[in-house]
Amino acid sequence: MINFPNSINVLIENLSKLPGVGKKTAQRLALFIINMNDEEVHNMANSIISAKQNTKYCSKCFNLADEDVCQICKSGKRDPTIICVVDSPRELIAIERTGGYKGMYHVLHGTISPLDGIGPDDIKIKELVTRMADNSIEEIILANNPTIEGEATAVYLSKLLSSFGIEITRIAHGVPVGGDLEFADEVTLIKAMENRHKL
Amino acid sequence: MINFPNSINVLIENLSKLPGVGKKTAQRLALFIINMNDEEVHNMANSIISAKQNTKYCSKCFNLADEDVCQICKSGKRDPTIICVVDSPRELIAIERTGGYKGMYHVLHGTISPLDGIGPDDIKIKELVTRMADNSIEEIILANNPTIEGEATAVYLSKLLSSFGIEITRIAHGVPVGGDLEFADEVTLIKAMENRHKL
Repeated sequence: MINFPNSINVLIENLSKLPGVGKKTAQRLALFIINMNDEEVHNMANSIISAKQNTKYCSKCFNLADEDVCQICKSGKRDPTIICVVDSPRELIAIERTGGYKGMYHVLHGTISPLDGIGPDDIKIKELVTRMADNSIEEIILANNPTIEGEATAVYLSKLLSSFGIEITRIAHGVPVGGDLEFADEVTLIKAMENRHKL
Repeated sequence: MINFPNSINVLIENLSKLPGVGKKTAQRLALFIINMNDEEVHNMANSIISAKQNTKYCSKCFNLADEDVCQICKSGKRDPTIICVVDSPRELIAIERTGGYKGMYHVLHGTISPLDGIGPDDIKIKELVTRMADNSIEEIILANNPTIEGEATAVYLSKLLSSFGIEITRIAHGVPVGGDLEFADEVTLIKAMENRHKL
């Protein structure tokens, strides 16, 4: 039947691992790639390695960063008394895109999910608690995704942080339950941020 | 607004060049890639370079090949008296997938398209004429895509090859006009091959 040269098969296999890329799409991408010129191909490959090697995480909030501290934590224009807790950089980007939030973030890099063997110690919860130490935080907004795991993580955090005597809020369910923050439109996301409620 | 670290921006820009990958998909893929482990990232990048470097084209039919001659040209089980002319390796693969064709191929690597500045000399037409020299060819099947450029190329070839006194056929319009061979289902493609008609 169809016999691609081996190196193309390997490429197709690797491309199939990307989210939303099936066998046929991978095949299409692979044939496109081998038709690009040498320089473009090298740029593509190098940018993959470089993005992986150069991506650091902010030592404070664990957002994606160029340097030790991310641009949001470094900025003097953000309100350091509010921390918005998100599951991953994707959700941080979705909230930044609204332009309606001016506080800080904390990226958990995961949600508590016992079925997948992910407990509180496997995500950046300890690091969030450490940030509470200087007593300057006045509010924690739990912007975890409105999924089962996200809700569970929010409930866990609200209990854990209640002893600090600060305001703990959860974004409103303006975002459709079972969805993904990344795909909510800007207005819905702003509403969700405005209508946050105490837990 | 949203400030990705620079190396991620470069990766997003490169991924956006792939067909069917927009800005948002590229962003999603980039964030997925930086979350893969080092080995997976290197495999991905290396497979891109390797596919580009190791892909050769068959010196006879210009299909993708591991070696100097492709597996189809090398196979003793194919009928060497019929050549099926296709626009690109994608269409060759689509026809091979049907399992209903047992002749040889000739890959043009393009279609005649004056608007894009692609003339007969820019695609593998000379090489096809050269293959006619040994007088063993009995039929040429023109399986160019049923697009305007594909039709034009088929008409051009039928005129060019008419002097050789062999059978020149065009696949039937079982495949929807304006579409792409790659997306036709197997049965439609077999029908199109069976119903080929003299030009």
